Amino acid sequence: MITKQAFEAAHERIRPYIHRTPVMTSTGIDTLAGASLHFKCENFQKVGAFKARGAMNAVLSLTDEERAKGVATHSSGNHAQALARAAQLMGIRSYIVMPRTAPAVKKRGVLGYGGEIFECEPTLEARESTLADVVAKTGATEIHPFNNYEVMTGQGTAVIELLDDAEEQLDIVITPVGGGGLLSGTAMAVKHFSPDTIVYAGEPEGADDAYRSFKSGKMEVSQANSVADGLLTSLGTKTFPVIHELVKGVVTVSDKEIVEAMRLMWEKMKIVVEPSGAVPLAAVLKAKDVFAGKRVGIIISGGNVDLVRALKLFEENA
Amino acid sequence: MITKQAFEAAHERIRPYIHRTPVMTSTGIDTLAGASLHFKCENFQKVGAFKARGAMNAVLSLTDEERAKGVATHSSGNHAQALARAAQLMGIRSYIVMPRTAPAVKKRGVLGYGGEIFECEPTLEARESTLADVVAKTGATEIHPFNNYEVMTGQGTAVIELLDDAEEQLDIVITPVGGGGLLSGTAMAVKHFSPDTIVYAGEPEGADDAYRSFKSGKMEVSQANSVADGLLTSLGTKTFPVIHELVKGVVTVSDKEIVEAMRLMWEKMKIVVEPSGAVPLAAVLKAKDVFAGKRVGIIISGGNVDLVRALKLFEENA
Repeated sequence: MITKQAFEAAHERIRPYIHRTPVMTSTGIDTLAGASLHFKCENFQKVGAFKARGAMNAVLSLTDEERAKGVATHSSGNHAQALARAAQLMGIRSYIVMPRTAPAVKKRGVLGYGGEIFECEPTLEARESTLADVVAKTGATEIHPFNNYEVMTGQGTAVIELLDDAEEQLDIVITPVGGGGLLSGTAMAVKHFSPDTIVYAGEPEGADDAYRSFKSGKMEVSQANSVADGLLTSLGTKTFPVIHELVKGVVTVSDKEIVEAMRLMWEKMKIVVEPSGAVPLAAVLKAKDVFAGKRVGIIISGGNVDLVRALKLFEENA
Repeated sequence: MITKQAFEAAHERIRPYIHRTPVMTSTGIDTLAGASLHFKCENFQKVGAFKARGAMNAVLSLTDEERAKGVATHSSGNHAQALARAAQLMGIRSYIVMPRTAPAVKKRGVLGYGGEIFECEPTLEARESTLADVVAKTGATEIHPFNNYEVMTGQGTAVIELLDDAEEQLDIVITPVGGGGLLSGTAMAVKHFSPDTIVYAGEPEGADDAYRSFKSGKMEVSQANSVADGLLTSLGTKTFPVIHELVKGVVTVSDKEIVEAMRLMWEKMKIVVEPSGAVPLAAVLKAKDVFAGKRVGIIISGGNVDLVRALKLFEENA
């Protein structure tokens, strides 16, 4: 369990390098959900996703000796940009292993922040072996996208702001879950800063390892098959125990439900949200028994989506 | 010239019925523009456009006797929704004449606010004759989309908030121009609230009546040919003299430049902006001699765009 003081220190540490993103509401979507929703817009965050928080906290927590050799990671996208940016801000090198199938917009983002990309096949095995090579060659410190306590602590700072800025006390907070960095950080921070608030997760049906792990009590593996490309990974050894202990439930949603929720946010809120970022709203609209009548905080994870891909999803789903 | 007191009274009157929309910035777009840009996000306004302001002020300014007979207008879209909403909030009827070519999302919006739609051909003549019929039959008060002093005053309240909320003193404010309601209201309000700030307009090349009127000194007619469907109308008899006197210049932009600016805002700012709302940024990126090095306030007029239509625009322009 990460302490309250650690969350406060991380929030203070990263504050100069991140946006305090707004909390938005939508009368139209509240009506559809039958609930009072407060959206924490991490799609407006630096690099377009909450991942800016965890990566920044991890890089700021390195020793001088570690910084000198740079940082490395494997990531399907947002963490990659976030780490490259954090490294650039500190004037150090970053080595990013990315699946060759990652959206072009995410690759351009990494290059724009001075990151050095190493492409690999889109499997966990290929990512890990490529990363091991890079680390062996460079001596860089690996900053895992989620299975890292500094990263988890950084991700937990978003909900601290959400709890502060929402205009009412929240009954429930819901985040998407992929590897569980955001979810575990959120669950621990909520336990410290708003102990009466319950934490839920939304997860794609086609990558529902968190849901199955939650039920079986042991770590299951993701099928990695969903439109929500940020959520294809499985929980980690550091995130799973926290989630198992502190999270109340996981609601799974279909790709069709994800695209519908995403479209609602684009049309009604006029904001660009990536598929992963629409998963919690899809869960809220689906599990009326859990969320109806409640004051719900939703963390929108990011807005990094290829526009033509997104608009095609809307067309196919119309 | 509308007085400072009239703007303040209008702002106070409409405040309970509108959002105080945020002012956003983007490091990435500032770099491209070579300027410090402050975006007033009226795409987040009620009904998705600044038009909520003018319509609300006009309806709130009616006598009880006028209200009893309802309101009517012709509009290509955003004013239509805005007037229907204002009427619904006051519990009165609204009759909306719309061109049959108006985007489906805008028609659905009007119906959702209880407006009664009368379709006509997409010409000014057809709109005006259809509206005359409706007014003759119902006794409703016509609320013109822009050639109306209460509407112009209401639209001018957006820049009052922009001047307040921007983190620095603005050298220039730029709005899109169609009929000139937003531009004339903005120009007058700026004259009162920030007399050293210069006002510019952005206008589509294919509907450049304001640009030509500005040069010739008399009212020219729009060719009404642009992707920016909210800006196809010509200036009105009440807006033209104000614009001619108070606006410093009009920058025209091509449809390609409009779609490029729109895409930038979607990708970098993660916000949904309609083509008309991207016209000022297109102008700022084009006329570097005017805007580079300046602190610029940009009013984003709205975010009501059919998503599938937006996809086609991005694809055609890629």
